[in-house]
Amino acid sequence: MSTKAFGTYAADQPLEHLAIERRSVTPHDVAIEILFCGICHSDLHSARNEWHGTVYPIVPGHEIVGKITQIGSHVTRYKVGDIVGVGCLVDSCRTCEHCEADLEQFCDNGHTQTFNSPDKHLGGMTFGGYSESIVVDENFVLRIPENLDLAATAPLLCAGITTYSPMKHWNVGPGKKVGVVGVGGLGHMAIKIAKALGAYVVVFTTSASKFEDAKRLGADEVVLSTDPDQMQLHTKTLHFILDAVSAQHDINAYLNLLKVDGAIALVGAPMEPLPVVSFNLIMGRRSFAGSLIGGLAETQEMLDFCAKHHVVSDIELIGVEDVNNAYERLLKGDVRYRFVIDMASLKKS
Amino acid sequence: MSTKAFGTYAADQPLEHLAIERRSVTPHDVAIEILFCGICHSDLHSARNEWHGTVYPIVPGHEIVGKITQIGSHVTRYKVGDIVGVGCLVDSCRTCEHCEADLEQFCDNGHTQTFNSPDKHLGGMTFGGYSESIVVDENFVLRIPENLDLAATAPLLCAGITTYSPMKHWNVGPGKKVGVVGVGGLGHMAIKIAKALGAYVVVFTTSASKFEDAKRLGADEVVLSTDPDQMQLHTKTLHFILDAVSAQHDINAYLNLLKVDGAIALVGAPMEPLPVVSFNLIMGRRSFAGSLIGGLAETQEMLDFCAKHHVVSDIELIGVEDVNNAYERLLKGDVRYRFVIDMASLKKS
Repeated sequence: MSTKAFGTYAADQPLEHLAIERRSVTPHDVAIEILFCGICHSDLHSARNEWHGTVYPIVPGHEIVGKITQIGSHVTRYKVGDIVGVGCLVDSCRTCEHCEADLEQFCDNGHTQTFNSPDKHLGGMTFGGYSESIVVDENFVLRIPENLDLAATAPLLCAGITTYSPMKHWNVGPGKKVGVVGVGGLGHMAIKIAKALGAYVVVFTTSASKFEDAKRLGADEVVLSTDPDQMQLHTKTLHFILDAVSAQHDINAYLNLLKVDGAIALVGAPMEPLPVVSFNLIMGRRSFAGSLIGGLAETQEMLDFCAKHHVVSDIELIGVEDVNNAYERLLKGDVRYRFVIDMASLKKS
Repeated sequence: MSTKAFGTYAADQPLEHLAIERRSVTPHDVAIEILFCGICHSDLHSARNEWHGTVYPIVPGHEIVGKITQIGSHVTRYKVGDIVGVGCLVDSCRTCEHCEADLEQFCDNGHTQTFNSPDKHLGGMTFGGYSESIVVDENFVLRIPENLDLAATAPLLCAGITTYSPMKHWNVGPGKKVGVVGVGGLGHMAIKIAKALGAYVVVFTTSASKFEDAKRLGADEVVLSTDPDQMQLHTKTLHFILDAVSAQHDINAYLNLLKVDGAIALVGAPMEPLPVVSFNLIMGRRSFAGSLIGGLAETQEMLDFCAKHHVVSDIELIGVEDVNNAYERLLKGDVRYRFVIDMASLKKS
């Protein structure tokens, strides 16, 4: 079915209106009218082919909240009218050891990402959430709890789960002292979630202008990471650090803040390799690790957790006509803290 | 008490005979006649001040096996004539959270290393095992099981525990596929211990000449790490990698061999920072970690484990007069796989 969308035909072209094809609903599918879609930095990376591998045209967007308009004949989990979410994944092999373990993000046979991934149904590539509707297997659809603001919930589908999953994996909770590096789209969610999990939260930022915001978001302490004296005070004090910085930065300065058996989980993805001083790992049996979104079950768990703790994203709501400008502002870090597109604007235009 | 030893007065001088002072036995001390002392690469680093911080004169040696000749009035664990070992540590604060948790290697208040560490009793610095005797608190003395060859047991006190401890921490055992990088003093112990723990062992070496040895030591497979095709075959197959290489090497090539949630533990300490590609951590929630020797309780556990499984080091027994030559050969990797000094040679000379 021909569907209105907003994407681009080339790395050096702005995003524009275009028409894409959505498949007809198969027995296990639901069709979703998209209400809101968050803008993730990886949308921009992909639209501009910065990670290479982009196939054009591309329609980005994997922080989707919408309403079910149609269900397949075998769908059991949802009904028409349900408010649901779609995150970074729309399919996986479902049979490998990682899919069996609810770790679809690590599917051995290659999961299907929400955009720019080979489309098993129609051929070509999948198209993301900058569009009026999407058709997804019900097993890759999340239930949005009733008490959450829908626009502010959209970023939970990527920024939320990307920060929640490593915190759960590395046992963040009461009695734990947790660092969050970077106060941006991911970082601001990390602060809120760490606090909701009951941890003591120390936020590291290069920008003194973000101190107040970090406190408002839930930080117990805020550290100017460019000040060696302030950094020094936190040596060997943190159980875990969530590193949400995607620019080059000195990972050794943070390794030294970890207690024995502490771990850093990188969720940003700097393009250049990060030099690691081996003594910083050896002294304290520390780990430098990474983490990638989360599986479907954990994403639902995260949404339910956020509903219980009243955690959503701080957003700036825009129309599709503002997406190109939003990308430019994103590059300057000029958003507190996530752009979300009101998809009603696509229908009007 | 004046004691014969073998050490050096300067970074650029060879080791030579010298006399050091050992304290009189205090109530909790035992005096040990040193029978054998292994040569660890860190002996050489310290003697030549390559890690800086060496105070001269220095007497290296922290792989000590000997016989108790005298015990203090309050000693309960040992008697005269017992065969015992001393490893890298001779004291710690005993009260911090890590000492309480049997992780004296991470003592918050600074443990006392066997050599080149401030000596709480005599002032100055501690002197290591290249000497005829040593006096050590009984709590930092290990019991050597009866069935082990004493000379070949000495390297267990550093090389053995350094490889055993991370394998236990990262759950190496039956059903696990474990990589060992580097076939040297540490690596050859890692192969034997991983095998004794019941793991499937894949050894990585830059030297085809070590293939046969690696198999003899217990490797199930041996990979020439300079051959990208051979490396490729092991992508995403290993649960854990023990990295015993202290020269610069490409850690990313090994990160890619880890399964989801796999970890590399670095026990060698390359001087230059190791560049880490963030995607290699993020894709698979992998960890790049380090590990440092082991605590006293775990060192005893390792010795008992080695006795049960008939694991000792492959050694070349030398006299003290051969130490300087041994250091030169060590730099060329010309030893299979650990030099051990027969301390009887010190008395004679």
